[in-house]
Amino acid sequence: MLFIDEGLELLTEYEALALLRTGDIGRVGVTVGALPAIFPVNYRIIDGAVVFRTSPGSKLNAATSGSVVAFEVDDHDPEARTGWSVLVVGRAEVVHDVDVTFKILDAGLEPYAGGTRTDIVRIEPMFVSGRRIVQDGSDR
Amino acid sequence: MLFIDEGLELLTEYEALALLRTGDIGRVGVTVGALPAIFPVNYRIIDGAVVFRTSPGSKLNAATSGSVVAFEVDDHDPEARTGWSVLVVGRAEVVHDVDVTFKILDAGLEPYAGGTRTDIVRIEPMFVSGRRIVQDGSDR
Repeated sequence: MLFIDEGLELLTEYEALALLRTGDIGRVGVTVGALPAIFPVNYRIIDGAVVFRTSPGSKLNAATSGSVVAFEVDDHDPEARTGWSVLVVGRAEVVHDVDVTFKILDAGLEPYAGGTRTDIVRIEPMFVSGRRIVQDGSDR
Repeated sequence: MLFIDEGLELLTEYEALALLRTGDIGRVGVTVGALPAIFPVNYRIIDGAVVFRTSPGSKLNAATSGSVVAFEVDDHDPEARTGWSVLVVGRAEVVHDVDVTFKILDAGLEPYAGGTRTDIVRIEPMFVSGRRIVQDGSDR
């Protein structure tokens, strides 16, 4: 068990990828007009990549096309004081691929805000890391 | 009601700020070694700014000190297909201020991973925006 910071345990890549598969909503970190921005998306893991749907011409579509972006998923149990987060960094691109579209339909991936978000954005992971909150044994 | 994209309604600043006060865990978007990253934090709104705790010397501490960062909060009801997200962009800085420390104690702000995270990071909002998922009336 590797601690990266007090109270935080670094996950193995295997653990991080396994948790990444369990999520439904993630957040994409991009740059819009030289300023940082974060947007929630519904996502799935398809062929080892993070995939979400967006509208042609949307801000998120433009910000992700061809850019290196951050993608984060987390889950928390405030009562138990536990939680984890997984961070993916990779280049995003809009894909036009019938095979991927079928896999998205099979995976039941609906866009975050519904509607006819026909563009498929794919983030190919360059780096994957994960952290888990570990209890320190005290009762605070 | 202003639609920014199909299925998404732009919130007023008043609505966005009101929702920002209701959250507990948010995500900070920063740049670490020229790459984008997103980390979850426990936060409070104190004196009109986003405030969270971090460890001196930590990656998050270094990435936020003096940088313009994104901060995002969201909430979702998958069953009802509703949700909202609020995005804050602003300069982050570590503050050493007894008054702020007392307010953090009053607000019960615990650091995300517990422990002795003594540094207080404050994000002064430059821009605040919010989006809400609106139902399109169809049953999909």
